[in-house]
Amino acid sequence: MAGLRGGIDLGGTKIQAAIVDSAGKVLGEARRPTPTGGGPRGVAEEMAAALREAAEQAGAETTALEGVGVGSPGDADEKTGVVSSARNLPDWEGSFPLAETLKEALGTEVRVGNDVQVATEAEFHLGAGREFQSLIGVFWGTGVGGGLVLGGKPWLGRGAAGEIGHVVVKRGGAKCPCGRRGCMEAYAGRLAMEAEARHQHEEGHKTDLFKLMEKHGKPRLTSGIWERALDANDHLAEDLIHRAIEALGTGIASAVNLLDPEAVIVGGGLGIRFGDRYMEPLTKEMGKHLFLDEKPPAVRVAALGDLGGAIGASLLFAR
Amino acid sequence: MAGLRGGIDLGGTKIQAAIVDSAGKVLGEARRPTPTGGGPRGVAEEMAAALREAAEQAGAETTALEGVGVGSPGDADEKTGVVSSARNLPDWEGSFPLAETLKEALGTEVRVGNDVQVATEAEFHLGAGREFQSLIGVFWGTGVGGGLVLGGKPWLGRGAAGEIGHVVVKRGGAKCPCGRRGCMEAYAGRLAMEAEARHQHEEGHKTDLFKLMEKHGKPRLTSGIWERALDANDHLAEDLIHRAIEALGTGIASAVNLLDPEAVIVGGGLGIRFGDRYMEPLTKEMGKHLFLDEKPPAVRVAALGDLGGAIGASLLFAR
Repeated sequence: MAGLRGGIDLGGTKIQAAIVDSAGKVLGEARRPTPTGGGPRGVAEEMAAALREAAEQAGAETTALEGVGVGSPGDADEKTGVVSSARNLPDWEGSFPLAETLKEALGTEVRVGNDVQVATEAEFHLGAGREFQSLIGVFWGTGVGGGLVLGGKPWLGRGAAGEIGHVVVKRGGAKCPCGRRGCMEAYAGRLAMEAEARHQHEEGHKTDLFKLMEKHGKPRLTSGIWERALDANDHLAEDLIHRAIEALGTGIASAVNLLDPEAVIVGGGLGIRFGDRYMEPLTKEMGKHLFLDEKPPAVRVAALGDLGGAIGASLLFAR
Repeated sequence: MAGLRGGIDLGGTKIQAAIVDSAGKVLGEARRPTPTGGGPRGVAEEMAAALREAAEQAGAETTALEGVGVGSPGDADEKTGVVSSARNLPDWEGSFPLAETLKEALGTEVRVGNDVQVATEAEFHLGAGREFQSLIGVFWGTGVGGGLVLGGKPWLGRGAAGEIGHVVVKRGGAKCPCGRRGCMEAYAGRLAMEAEARHQHEEGHKTDLFKLMEKHGKPRLTSGIWERALDANDHLAEDLIHRAIEALGTGIASAVNLLDPEAVIVGGGLGIRFGDRYMEPLTKEMGKHLFLDEKPPAVRVAALGDLGGAIGASLLFAR
């Protein structure tokens, strides 16, 4: 059992738990929907249950683990283990001592970190970023999150670094879910893309996006629905993906001009689904704004897929 | 003489040399215009002459110095001492072994670094950034350059980090001197501001900017000419400075969202002249785009003034 660690990726729709050995191999995993009621305490109970299930699969007691790391949305304080303002989660506007609560439930040390930052570190240590010493992780999903590894180490700033989704790509531009204008996420985040699709559909633009959503019983435009629409050459879907790619290319180029990293790793729900398909237009859009366009960084799609967040969380005990 | 270092700031219009002791105190200094002919070799000769003059003032032989650092424009390779593509300098499109040439002339070790990066490090060690461990230096002058100190150390990326002037603030926006569109520098760089002022003046907008330039015998709109126009409430000058401040605030906020540093230091010719005067509108513009607007970084005007570049260059022997 020596060297076994737990990792939990806490998302707005699902909780993913994994047991990972010191080489990064996943020995057990479990997934549960994030409870929509019960507040932070209810969510913590479900997290503990998912981790126990994964541990059982790995044949390990949770008390024998080196520790359990959690990748969390909101403001996750690595020092205190408190998570605040996790607005995607039920009744989690305030602060909740997540590490302490899980430690009691699991009988082992618990650390929390930012979900996107730990997923970036997982790609750095074990995934698409293994061969690089500096990289920017871009997680293209509901929103657009980011994480940084510089000189082989995570760069957290004062605790909130990596908000590449809120790099401005167009001053005075589209309204972002964050309330500001012109952020990359205002064009590229799934939530913002869906709002724009709905708006244009209501204004009379033809699209099958919402028909497909209903047909497949989805409550929202998932990455799978976008893919189906694109496969059917839906013009509105194509326009909005192109607009997202433009914004991603612009914002990533700005970040590269500032940091000059060796690599950019594109992950997240949309990133994993569309990263390969749109790699050419993405790197082309980036190229338009790269100051050293003859020396672009490597651009790679995240390699650890859906488990990257949980694996990265377990690495909070390997730093 | 122990611990004395030389520093040379190589600019497009002037060469500034200084002799600095290990506490950062300037013991001698000299300034010469950058030769407009004679190519890289001619520039190097003038640099050596300026450094000798400063050393004489400090009562030191150049051979007794720990070394001489050079802050250079263009692509300054710290490892080889070669400077390439310094387009602001005469006939310096190619590569020139600047460190080697100066070493022969001065009889001491020579290191080269990026001019803006070394000025940022000078502010970090000895100037407005002394109390911080992470900061972004923004040098607002002919162009807009930047330097980074993260976790107490310079961050150079693959050698070209810090290009904050080419962070995009408006996709598809104004043409930048770099040839791309929408860069911060396209709105805030002195060169771009002058081109826009000239364009608007030719289109019939009233302004005294060019009258003032001629009256004071300047070949271009210097920061001093801008200041005189602003003091006289010249509307076009006010509009263009406001536009520059908007772009600076937006681009700096993007960089802060990505890096979450403790401080932003604003230097450069325009930055030193206008930093205090426009601190309030600048921080207000930043605030519009800061993801964590309740926790902004400190924003300070560079404290070492014109000598910051040469002092920073001398610190290449203190890293």
